[in-house]
Amino acid sequence: MRKSALTSALLVSAALSAPAFANGDVAKLTADSNNWAMQAGDYANTRYSKLNQITTANVKDLKVAWSFSTGVLRGHEGSPLVIGSTMYVHTPFPNIVYALDLDNEAKIIWKYEPKQDPSVIPVMCCDTVNRGLAYAEGIIILNQADTNVVALDAKTGKELWKATNADPKKGETHTGTTLIVKDKVLVGVSGAEFGVRCHVTAYDLKSGKRVWRAYSMGPDSDILVDPAKTMSLGKPVGENSSLKTWTGDQWKIGGGSSWGWFSYDPDLNLFYYGTGNPSTWNPAQRAGPDGKQIDQKWSMSIMARNPDTGMAAWLYQMTPFDEWDYDGINEMILAELDFGGTKRKTLTHFDRNGLGYTLDRATGELLVAEKYDPAVNWTTGVVMDKASPQYGRPQVVPKMSTFQNGQDVNSKGICPAALGSKDQQPAAWSPQTGLFYVPTNHVCMDYEPFKVSYTAGQPYVGATLSMYPAPNSHGGMGNFIAWDGAKGKIVWSKAEPFSVWSGALATAGGVVFYGTLEGYLKAVDQKDGKELYKFKTPSGIIGNVMTYSHKGKQYVGVYSGVGGWAGIGLAAGLTNPNDGLGAVGGYAGLRNYTNLGGVLTVFSLP
Amino acid sequence: MRKSALTSALLVSAALSAPAFANGDVAKLTADSNNWAMQAGDYANTRYSKLNQITTANVKDLKVAWSFSTGVLRGHEGSPLVIGSTMYVHTPFPNIVYALDLDNEAKIIWKYEPKQDPSVIPVMCCDTVNRGLAYAEGIIILNQADTNVVALDAKTGKELWKATNADPKKGETHTGTTLIVKDKVLVGVSGAEFGVRCHVTAYDLKSGKRVWRAYSMGPDSDILVDPAKTMSLGKPVGENSSLKTWTGDQWKIGGGSSWGWFSYDPDLNLFYYGTGNPSTWNPAQRAGPDGKQIDQKWSMSIMARNPDTGMAAWLYQMTPFDEWDYDGINEMILAELDFGGTKRKTLTHFDRNGLGYTLDRATGELLVAEKYDPAVNWTTGVVMDKASPQYGRPQVVPKMSTFQNGQDVNSKGICPAALGSKDQQPAAWSPQTGLFYVPTNHVCMDYEPFKVSYTAGQPYVGATLSMYPAPNSHGGMGNFIAWDGAKGKIVWSKAEPFSVWSGALATAGGVVFYGTLEGYLKAVDQKDGKELYKFKTPSGIIGNVMTYSHKGKQYVGVYSGVGGWAGIGLAAGLTNPNDGLGAVGGYAGLRNYTNLGGVLTVFSLP
Repeated sequence: MRKSALTSALLVSAALSAPAFANGDVAKLTADSNNWAMQAGDYANTRYSKLNQITTANVKDLKVAWSFSTGVLRGHEGSPLVIGSTMYVHTPFPNIVYALDLDNEAKIIWKYEPKQDPSVIPVMCCDTVNRGLAYAEGIIILNQADTNVVALDAKTGKELWKATNADPKKGETHTGTTLIVKDKVLVGVSGAEFGVRCHVTAYDLKSGKRVWRAYSMGPDSDILVDPAKTMSLGKPVGENSSLKTWTGDQWKIGGGSSWGWFSYDPDLNLFYYGTGNPSTWNPAQRAGPDGKQIDQKWSMSIMARNPDTGMAAWLYQMTPFDEWDYDGINEMILAELDFGGTKRKTLTHFDRNGLGYTLDRATGELLVAEKYDPAVNWTTGVVMDKASPQYGRPQVVPKMSTFQNGQDVNSKGICPAALGSKDQQPAAWSPQTGLFYVPTNHVCMDYEPFKVSYTAGQPYVGATLSMYPAPNSHGGMGNFIAWDGAKGKIVWSKAEPFSVWSGALATAGGVVFYGTLEGYLKAVDQKDGKELYKFKTPSGIIGNVMTYSHKGKQYVGVYSGVGGWAGIGLAAGLTNPNDGLGAVGGYAGLRNYTNLGGVLTVFSLP
Repeated sequence: MRKSALTSALLVSAALSAPAFANGDVAKLTADSNNWAMQAGDYANTRYSKLNQITTANVKDLKVAWSFSTGVLRGHEGSPLVIGSTMYVHTPFPNIVYALDLDNEAKIIWKYEPKQDPSVIPVMCCDTVNRGLAYAEGIIILNQADTNVVALDAKTGKELWKATNADPKKGETHTGTTLIVKDKVLVGVSGAEFGVRCHVTAYDLKSGKRVWRAYSMGPDSDILVDPAKTMSLGKPVGENSSLKTWTGDQWKIGGGSSWGWFSYDPDLNLFYYGTGNPSTWNPAQRAGPDGKQIDQKWSMSIMARNPDTGMAAWLYQMTPFDEWDYDGINEMILAELDFGGTKRKTLTHFDRNGLGYTLDRATGELLVAEKYDPAVNWTTGVVMDKASPQYGRPQVVPKMSTFQNGQDVNSKGICPAALGSKDQQPAAWSPQTGLFYVPTNHVCMDYEPFKVSYTAGQPYVGATLSMYPAPNSHGGMGNFIAWDGAKGKIVWSKAEPFSVWSGALATAGGVVFYGTLEGYLKAVDQKDGKELYKFKTPSGIIGNVMTYSHKGKQYVGVYSGVGGWAGIGLAAGLTNPNDGLGAVGGYAGLRNYTNLGGVLTVFSLP
């Protein structure tokens, strides 16, 4: 029975995938490793580059080739793109875009500066970040903070079209990047802290016309789920799979944001992303009609959808009935992993909840779910017995249940903190080692839920948090780890004083790169994590390391510009370390290392 | 007669100078070239370092050692200080000060962030710049934009005292640095574009108590001039030397700002600085009672004063009755120059008016006055015949006289422009070559004076300007030149696309450094100006290059952060290149190269 369901899911996705091609231009551009044509480097989200000029032997000689101030303070997430000899640089709000001429000492070819109402700034929960541009067929796609999706002529910077995706007055904003698949521009939205019912929307690349929208929760027609064909853990999800897991109309302000990194498998014609927390953070307000916990699907879930129609092929919910803000938003990395000699086409996902998941990406079969952060204490783990009614569900430790402890009770010592064992900082995967390289947080929290009422456009959080370094001795407040996605084990771990909030880059030279919140770009050996090089960039790094080649020379680039949730204290100028969403007091020490400032630093060998 | 007057001036200064010592601490610290203990490197303002690890042979291998974002946008003038293993970094408004621990990867030891009313910003004529800190005896002196002079404990950043020097509500602001001589802190003021009667004031280093104040214009008792003993061009200045050169009460709103770099000769016990333009820029409103030109002393003058009393030993006015805003504010460099085999203790000054002056610094005797910018066309030169009644005065070309052309007439093609052949960007002098290394502008203007009425705190400019690249073919919109101060001749000249708005550094390694408005740090050979190295820092450079040594390694540091008068279009976000004081349209092209952003970049050999 289970098997045939899996087979039928496979058939569904195979049927949907004909003809199986990506955006031909994007596929071609990303196949040429001289470019960095997507935020993640490729559709599979591996952040792996075949460039190998910089090696474990010579990376010690790396030097700064040039640098470029973006002219904007606050947190710089994402990375530049490089297509041929043009580099595209973006900034946080006000979301300026620069095209730089790599043939001409990075002279500015054009600059696009949108006019946006600054009233969007206070509606952005966790700094004014933007995770970067997308490119296809001569078009640059910019997701503005105010939810306008703008298509720019990549040659001239002229606006080709603009689509208004959502409404900041309701707390809807953009921080995520875009995935371009075939003729579609796939765009998520932020706002789970404002009671937004979030969604992913497809726009036509050429015209900007809206094609489909898939909500994270609601009726089947809204969430683009086929009750009979959309699968979860080997079974069809059935009718009203979302609605029946909510009480009353709570789903209408249900959250489930979609600002994370999307990935895509052209063979299966499926794209993958995660959804965020159910609103509010106070679980008591989301209890079932019986006063017990209830799943709130499809918040906190991995979604595998057909990009042409938006229809879901399969879904998997990591954290049913969230009680900790463990958004399921983090990226899905598509790899081929070895399970005792058998290669499987997998999807690996490092969840905010501290568990590293590997699934079969065709069927959504759960293969691995293990802690990738030794601090994790809210769960004893996920039930892997397919015969159990609890199959695929994390087992909650009662003491760490903010719901069981009750409203207005401060649940202490929960690990990880709300910002998770990993947040937006994307991991990389190297086919050379078969390992994932994961920037992590090692932070715990006290969490006190309280009753909150909903007003459109106003914060709808409903919990007070205090976050602090994990009290145990497993490394730093962040660790950069290598992870075996098939075995579900940490291979090596390198401690950092603060969370590693920067995205990793793996390269064919055997060197793995990441940035630190104090501002160091670091290069380590993929084998053992040995530090081979570090350089102090102007500001803390929350951007992602990228690499490209120009005129035969390999370059490594990264934004510095401290901010994001971890750096919100600095970014928003909070003088009290206990101010700000989630009270990021643990990061107050950053003030001793770095300041705001958006700078791209580009490295090369001499 | 003349001779005896000179002798008596010498005697005066010799008498004043006993006991002849500087601030012992500053003298000691600057003698140790491991430090960069003053903005200018030394009391003589040479910006020359005896460090010689970086040479013409190896400078090509220079690499960025580390970088530090100041967290502040807009123009970054001045440079850090290094005392031992501590670096002190400052920013433009809001004038943050950081102490960085060079023994500990530049970790922030302390941060001082003054609270200032942002209403001071629009009162700052030419960006929110600050030319840096001063240090002596464990005390850091910060000149805040709002004219508060603050003494900080260099170890802890705790405020020791604060003195309010002037009043931003009247247009009085601080942009200049401070000179500490013995127990005195010498502070100037800005505001000639707001009708401020400017001054230099001495505060007691330990208590912050005001000791004396010397105005640029007014009664002898205000300007601290002894009619019989204060000399000018070999003659006592006589009674009311200032008042009799003004009509009515115009001197009370007379300008003569004092925001430039001060220098000091401990043997003569004299400190030197220049005064700015007479207010308003409309010369017709400053005409004499007879409707003719009148000098408006001591605007546009070099002042040699005793730091203990403020009393002037000698004065020299470069541009009597200014008609072009050719402030005399630029630095005085104290050197020993060879005049046909005779060494003389000299003062060399590159004036905004395009003439390079060398004087005997004991007596004020004028030795050389020659054009250091081939574009200069407002004057045929300075009369050097001591017997002439015109001795020491520049001869004005009538066509370029905005006064003779008349109010509301647009005088076209005047060179240099109001921002001068050189503005704040300080030159360096190397005892190895005996040459001055001068960052210059090569810019002309159209100038149309108009009637303006005075209101305290409101702009009191009275002229509309348009500035543009010099139309002749002598190099770029800026040139970096080597100047023979005894002969008054350009030795070599290196063209740059934009004005060189960064201060120069000369070193014993034979390498001279400067920055460019596009953001390049450049190293050239002191012999011939050959470019040996360049690096693109994050933003345009208007700061001054400095060098220090730490644990046996020589470092070179410079702020980038485009702005200042040349970069005000970018700094203040002016979208119309013809907006801003002096209409800095010629620099609009900077937008193609760089953006705002304050970053310290520190270089060393590998």
